[in-house]
Formats: sequence, structure tokens, C-alpha cells
Amino acid sequence: MTLRDDALKLHLDNCGKIEIGLKVPLQNNMDLALAYTPGVAEPCKDIKENEDLSFDYTWRGNCVAVISDGTRVLGLGNIGAAAAIPVMEGKSALFKAFGDVDAISVCLDTTDKEEFKKTVMILQKNYAGINLEDIQSPKCYDIEDELKEMCDIPVFHDDQHGTAIACLSGVLGGLRYVKKDIKTAKIVVNGCGAAGSAIGRLLVNMGATDVTMVDRWGALYDGIEEDQGITLDRIQKGLSVKTNLNKNKGTLADVVKGADVLIGVSAPNVFTKEIIQSMAEKNIVFAMANPVPETSYAAAKEAGATVVGTGRSDSPNQVNNVIVFPGIFRGALDVRAKRITEEMKVAAAYALANLIPEEELREDYVIPSAFDQRVAPTVAAAVAKVAIEQGLARKIVDPEVVYQNTAKRIAR
Amino acid sequence: MTLRDDALKLHLDNCGKIEIGLKVPLQNNMDLALAYTPGVAEPCKDIKENEDLSFDYTWRGNCVAVISDGTRVLGLGNIGAAAAIPVMEGKSALFKAFGDVDAISVCLDTTDKEEFKKTVMILQKNYAGINLEDIQSPKCYDIEDELKEMCDIPVFHDDQHGTAIACLSGVLGGLRYVKKDIKTAKIVVNGCGAAGSAIGRLLVNMGATDVTMVDRWGALYDGIEEDQGITLDRIQKGLSVKTNLNKNKGTLADVVKGADVLIGVSAPNVFTKEIIQSMAEKNIVFAMANPVPETSYAAAKEAGATVVGTGRSDSPNQVNNVIVFPGIFRGALDVRAKRITEEMKVAAAYALANLIPEEELREDYVIPSAFDQRVAPTVAAAVAKVAIEQGLARKIVDPEVVYQNTAKRIAR
Repeated sequence: MTLRDDALKLHLDNCGKIEIGLKVPLQNNMDLALAYTPGVAEPCKDIKENEDLSFDYTWRGNCVAVISDGTRVLGLGNIGAAAAIPVMEGKSALFKAFGDVDAISVCLDTTDKEEFKKTVMILQKNYAGINLEDIQSPKCYDIEDELKEMCDIPVFHDDQHGTAIACLSGVLGGLRYVKKDIKTAKIVVNGCGAAGSAIGRLLVNMGATDVTMVDRWGALYDGIEEDQGITLDRIQKGLSVKTNLNKNKGTLADVVKGADVLIGVSAPNVFTKEIIQSMAEKNIVFAMANPVPETSYAAAKEAGATVVGTGRSDSPNQVNNVIVFPGIFRGALDVRAKRITEEMKVAAAYALANLIPEEELREDYVIPSAFDQRVAPTVAAAVAKVAIEQGLARKIVDPEVVYQNTAKRIAR
Repeated sequence: MTLRDDALKLHLDNCGKIEIGLKVPLQNNMDLALAYTPGVAEPCKDIKENEDLSFDYTWRGNCVAVISDGTRVLGLGNIGAAAAIPVMEGKSALFKAFGDVDAISVCLDTTDKEEFKKTVMILQKNYAGINLEDIQSPKCYDIEDELKEMCDIPVFHDDQHGTAIACLSGVLGGLRYVKKDIKTAKIVVNGCGAAGSAIGRLLVNMGATDVTMVDRWGALYDGIEEDQGITLDRIQKGLSVKTNLNKNKGTLADVVKGADVLIGVSAPNVFTKEIIQSMAEKNIVFAMANPVPETSYAAAKEAGATVVGTGRSDSPNQVNNVIVFPGIFRGALDVRAKRITEEMKVAAAYALANLIPEEELREDYVIPSAFDQRVAPTVAAAVAKVAIEQGLARKIVDPEVVYQNTAKRIAR
């Protein structure tokens, strides 16, 4: 059996991966009278008077929608709503397994941005949060930003922010290991799509001062549009001002010289031996192209990299969003956060990076495993803490209690 | 503790009634590689080539949306999307418990008919069927009829058809008990809203020839609009032609004289002693106003009714939609029916009525209990059989196998 055969068999044998479970008994007329008519009228009446009670009286309180229009699914491109279901359903399954969040896959059969937003607005009262997924860029930026303004619940585009938080938790762990400071480290990010741009923005928000973004047009700098006659999307445009303050120009090979950190969210095998060898001593390379990274773990180590991470589960230091999104939403839901802020993302990345005690930190262990039971509780508590500090929590719960509750919820 | 207290406590303690369950293991990297990346790309690719496979490879194949706009919830009126969640979630729970259908509550935050339909069209590829619920009439007719035309999956407005099938299964059982024939029985239906109209239509489709519909303007007949200067909705208009062929006029008290069957979906206590006493010998009264019926079971019996049914669980012969919708959708899903037809509804009503063996039939037992484990398998098999006969099944499964599978699925 190949991976393909095994994967198809798993999906076929189970008719997918998630199902509905019952939290209340439905064995006799009394059960029905409480869960359905006539008793069900009571929570309805109370919610009509105070809509917030829908979070307490219904599964809404723990329900997150994983919403996609199927326009950029994995490496498969624009495959449409129906073909996107396996991914969104898989994500829902991970939400449950790793964060005890009741997530449901919602694939929208439209590629129109306005229809997407309109549909989400009509649906939002069913959910406590919205996880956007696998949407083409730059459309994904507008959809996320505009929905954040319009919705009363957290909206989070995981391809951007989940990836950025997971990657930068590894970078922070690596910097801890090599004893360098993110504020002064020379950092190059290759790839300026949704994930790369989110990494660039989060780096800036973490206080990094020497970040250079690179894409097919070379290093990004303020003025590149005029110089090269190209058009940046509005996120790239923002980054062109906030990064590369010295306005260095040139190819990846040009700007990577002497870099402490190189992050790739670009294309297979573009981090050559020469590129890695041109970096500073004690350098850090995160190569996250999927499924074939910018460099293999072994090749990067051979070229002299100190800390190497990839998206692959068969190499050390795997960057996997599953260490992020279950905890992010668990924390946001537990304090009923109004939104997920940059500060919460930074806190989540640091919490993950600091989860590994000093004495356990190794070059091949700078990022916690997805199966480390401390991960979701740690992230949830960090998010809850910031939400309370920022006055964005509608429910005050001690972050330590959030940690303990999350640990209990996901104990297997 | 009152019912109100108990119901609120049940909802609060459990944060609602349903949750997400996992059908696949997610314990290690291999599990993740099959259920998520990279393995999940395989079903995606196959579904892109053949969209029908989404029913096999994802939870779509067993997933029904319980969709409402909250405009007519229970007896509470237009309470909005958030306040409607407890009912839709309760319905989802019943779908699971009684039919092993994975139903999810989808409450739409719009009262606009076109937005409702548009939203459902954008969502439909997530589902194998759509159960419409608690939508104002006459809007509900247009929404159902137009969505049936537009969707590739069954669309079923349970307030109309579930109620009609449940009620008429009781009427058929009652007629069996008193040994009268539906084709010749004199039948009066009091109430011409969504449920009453659906009962009228299903009676006609069952071959009843002497049906009279009554509402606030008295008996419905062809020409009533001109005579009384009133406006009927299009369903009432259709019924004015297909029922009351003698064009009898007058109040309920006028037209009920000599009736064999009186069905109420109207208002509390309108079936007086005099009304019941004016009916034929061996008569049948179904009083389904909720929560206070047109007559209590005891009062109707005292007035001389032979067979009496109500919507109440504390009286015999309870008319409860839960004997209908789980089996209807179970059968439709098992053969992947394109739609749910009038013939399937008729078959479901007869199957329910005939489920009680001759020797067990009693005046206080003409309709099976919601907790009778034979109910959903019987309805599912009846629906599957008709779907296959009508060429509407995309998957041929022997109805006997549908019966056995359903019995296994819901065994507790």
C-alpha cells in the first residue's frame, strides 16, 4: 500500500473523519422535553433577550468554522468547494483532537470576494470563531481584514498567522539555542506570499530590526515598484516600508550574505549549499516549502547550518501549524475574546519557544512537537492572558485555569 | 426545579447538546500524514475529477444541514438566528440519536428570501441533504420549492412534510383501527398554515377525495377569494381547487358535521365538545396545536371521539416528527436520493401506520412511539424503495439492507 492508497482507504472506510456527537441523553420523553420541545423554548427566549447567552446555552460557545472557498488548497491550486472538504474536515479533526474545539468545515461554492464575506456575515452567529483557510492571495488579506472589522468574533487566517507563529516559535527557539537576539539578528525571508508576508509582519511586530523580504523580483525595498515597474499587493507594499530599512537590492544570494536567519516559504531546493554557506556563523535555516522544502534537513546541516527546521514530519524541528491554531482558538474561546491580535500572536510564539526548558534545548529540538501535551495549554493560556490585558476578553478566566482546563480537555 | 430550570441547566452545563466526534485516530505523525497533509491531497484530487466522490470520502455523505432563519421558531415567532440555535441544535441531536445522521444547525442571520437561497446554494456542497426548519409562511414555500429546483440534494421542510407524514401516519393507523378507508372518509383539516397545508396536500396525494380545509375565513373553496375579498397564498390557492369539491361553505362547526376525521393545526381549545359530538360515529381527532392542543386527549374522549392524538408526550398517540425526519433522511442518504418526492412521503406514512401489527392496534395505540427502534429503519427502507423505483437513487441498495443498516446504526 502506498500513502495514496492508505489515505484514500482511511477516508472511504470512515466516510470522512468527523461526525456529530451527543452531549445530552435522548433516551426517553423527559430527555426530549428538556433538549427539544417544550423545554428548548427556554434558552431560545433567554438568548432573544441577550444574544451573548448563545455562547453559554448552545454549542456555539465551542464552535469554530473552518471556512475556505477552495481557491488555494495545499499545493493543488483552485480546486473548488467540494474538493476542499477533505482538508477543512481534516483541520476540524485536528481542532478537536488537539484543542477540544468543535470545528466544522464550511466550504463556500463561490470565488467572489463579496459573496464570501456576505455568506460569512449571514453565518457568523453560529460560531464562536472563524478560521479562514486556503484562500488565494491577495484576496485572502481583504477577506480577513474586512471580516475582522465586521464580525464580533475572532477571525484568523491560519495560512498566514498560524504558519507565521509556528515558524517564528522555531526561529525564537533557534535564536535561544545560538544565543542571538531577534532584535539585532539579520533575517531574510524568501517568499512574499500569504505565509511569507505574515512572517515578515510578525517579525517586525516582535521587534526584529533587520528583516529583508525576497521574492521573484529580488529583495523588497521601498521604491521597488517604480524602479522595476512591478505591482505589489498592499501587504507587500507595507512590508517594503517596514523592512529592509537600508534598501538593499539584489537577489537572494546577494542579500543573504552574513544573515543569521533564513526563512523559506517559496519553492523546492532554492536554498543551495552556497547560499547557506554565505550566512553568518551559528545560523538558522527554516525551509518550509511543501512537500519539498527549500533545502532538506540533511543538506542544510551538511552545508554548515546550525539549526534547521522544515515542514516535514520526518525531519527534526518540524514547523507544524497544529502547534498553533488549536491553542490559539482554545484560549480565545475560553475568555470569549473579541478578536485575535498581533500581541496574542507574538505571545503565542514566545510561549511555544519558551516551552522547551534551557537544559532540553538542542539544535535538533528548538520547537515543541505537535504531540507534546503541553503545547495547546501553553498557547491557550498565553492568548487568554493577552486578551485579558488588552481588555478584549468578555469573560475573565485566570490563564492558569485556562491552562489546566485545556490540559484536561485534550488528555487522551 | 421547574421544566424551565431543568432545561436551562441542561443547556448550560453542557454548553449545548452536540459536539464534533472523531472517526479516525490522530495519535502520531502517521495518523496526521493520512488524515491531513500530505495524504489528504489524494481524496481532494479525486473529488476534483469526480465531485460525487465527496459523498464517499468526506463526512458530507452523512451530513444534513438543519437550516433556519429563525423567523418562526416554535410558538415564539421571529426570534432571529442566534435565538433559534437551541432548536436547530436540538433537531441535529435528534437526527443523530434517531437516525445516525450527522446534522448540523445552520441559522441564517437574514430574513431576506433571496439571501437565504443564495446562502444555501453557496453552502450546499457541504451537505448530503437540507432540512429546512422554522421559516415563516408563505416564504417557506418559495424557499423550499426554489431550492428543490436549484439543489442536487434533497431539500425537505420538516414543519410542513414531517408534520404531515407523522400526523397522517396516525390518521392511517386510526382509520385501520376503525376500519374506514382514507379514499372515502370525510376529512376536515382546521388550520391552513404551513403544516395544515402540507397535510391537505398529502391527503390529496394519498387519494383522499373528501377533504375540507378550514381557516379563519371558514371552509376553503374554489372562488373564496372573490366571494370574501381575501387573498390566499399559492398553496392555499392550489388546495382551494383540489379539496372541497362540493364547495361547501361555512364555519368549522358547519363543515365538520358527519366528518370521520378532524385534524387541527390551529389554536388551543377550538375543538369543543359540540364540534366533536357532531362528527360521524367511530371518528378520529388529531389535535396538534402546541403546546396546548385544540382539545385535550381526555376531553375529546369524553366527547365521544374514538381515536384521539395530540402533539403531547403525556397523552397516547403522540404525533411527533421525530418518527419521520431521521428515517426520511437516513433512507435518502443511504441510496443518495436526488430529492424527496410526494411518493416517498406517502410511502413513509403508510410504512409507519402499518408498523403496528393488527393484533396490537388499539384506540390509544395507532401511531408508533418515537422510541420504537423499528421506526427509523422502517421509514428509511420505505423511502429508499421508492427512490429506487422512481429512478432517483444514485446508489442502489436493497431496502432490506437499508433497514438492517439503520437498525444497526441506531442500536443503543
